[in-house]
Amino acid sequence: MKIIDISWPISAGMTSYKDRFKVAVQAIKEFKVDGVRESCVTLNAHSGTHVDAPSHFISDGMTIETLALEKLMGTCLVLDCTAAESSITQSDLVGYDSVINKNDIVLLKTANSDRSSEDLFNPDFVYLAHSGALYLRQKGVKAVGIDYLGIERAQPDHATHLELMNADIPIIEGLRLATVTPGRYHFICLPLHIVGMEAAPARAILIQND
Amino acid sequence: MKIIDISWPISAGMTSYKDRFKVAVQAIKEFKVDGVRESCVTLNAHSGTHVDAPSHFISDGMTIETLALEKLMGTCLVLDCTAAESSITQSDLVGYDSVINKNDIVLLKTANSDRSSEDLFNPDFVYLAHSGALYLRQKGVKAVGIDYLGIERAQPDHATHLELMNADIPIIEGLRLATVTPGRYHFICLPLHIVGMEAAPARAILIQND
Repeated sequence: MKIIDISWPISAGMTSYKDRFKVAVQAIKEFKVDGVRESCVTLNAHSGTHVDAPSHFISDGMTIETLALEKLMGTCLVLDCTAAESSITQSDLVGYDSVINKNDIVLLKTANSDRSSEDLFNPDFVYLAHSGALYLRQKGVKAVGIDYLGIERAQPDHATHLELMNADIPIIEGLRLATVTPGRYHFICLPLHIVGMEAAPARAILIQND
Repeated sequence: MKIIDISWPISAGMTSYKDRFKVAVQAIKEFKVDGVRESCVTLNAHSGTHVDAPSHFISDGMTIETLALEKLMGTCLVLDCTAAESSITQSDLVGYDSVINKNDIVLLKTANSDRSSEDLFNPDFVYLAHSGALYLRQKGVKAVGIDYLGIERAQPDHATHLELMNADIPIIEGLRLATVTPGRYHFICLPLHIVGMEAAPARAILIQND
């Protein structure tokens, strides 16, 4: 069994969505002074690898702690979408029609993974177009992940998010897939159990059986 | 497959170690105003369920992001230590000698789990005495977890922490085991990938096969 960590490293220098939020790490106790290290961290709920709950965009949507963790664990398919230049549409995905199974967790590997984890935010990141989200919903996938800090852009109606959220399909953003060969894995993603939040930072891994 | 969430719910009102640190959740965007919810959270690295890295107490100890996740996943034994009134010593554990296997992840269920997740800090919490830590190290366990925000108290030399840390045995603190029947499970704990920290908040679950 091999574990592949696909989490975005959290640091003060990490890329943040639209460069709007700096993660802060603060030392409370230092080893030289106190003989112990203790620190605290301030995170946006959407910093690095995180899971969006429906309440992010839906007025009465459920919050992150109520999300069934079964939806974030299971058979996973990493799709090679590195040729997509702007967005991933239905026509970019239909070529995979025979390999996407019902209840797969689908992770979209794009050119976004080529950027470092500390680059400035790229407003032209590759995103999942509404037609792609609709297609994945119709395929009956269990969850959808992408390798950037958003899964949509330039969609004032949040059509991609809402297509998935209204079908109770969790959205995992901020994955790091540069070193991952497209194919099948076992996926586990555990977001922090934060009461009432619209999203939560998470650790995500792939497991590859020998 | 049944998932049992054994994570301490994170909220502004949650219990914190020695009542020293209030978790803060701050709304950045509100649905009524912005049509979207966005928030941030300030956490102590030792808030709720978390994993300690050796750098917490060892000058040149490794930090949390370098911890091999294999050590936080695998066969787990939840031990009934609810009869222990103050500390769990070697003599409290030897009765389990025949059931503790090498590479087990051992979780100590104590009277600590009877307290709510939002009670004031209990300075008399049940902890793992040094003799208990030494015993578990000698048994070759893979990781040790406990159901309170510390695994030791009243030990100025941090003997329990150091016994385990010097053997590269991760320490998981802040588990919630009130509803868990002692016995065997599969355990998964994923701490946030925070660069350079001495600990990190985590989500922890037990998996019970039908």
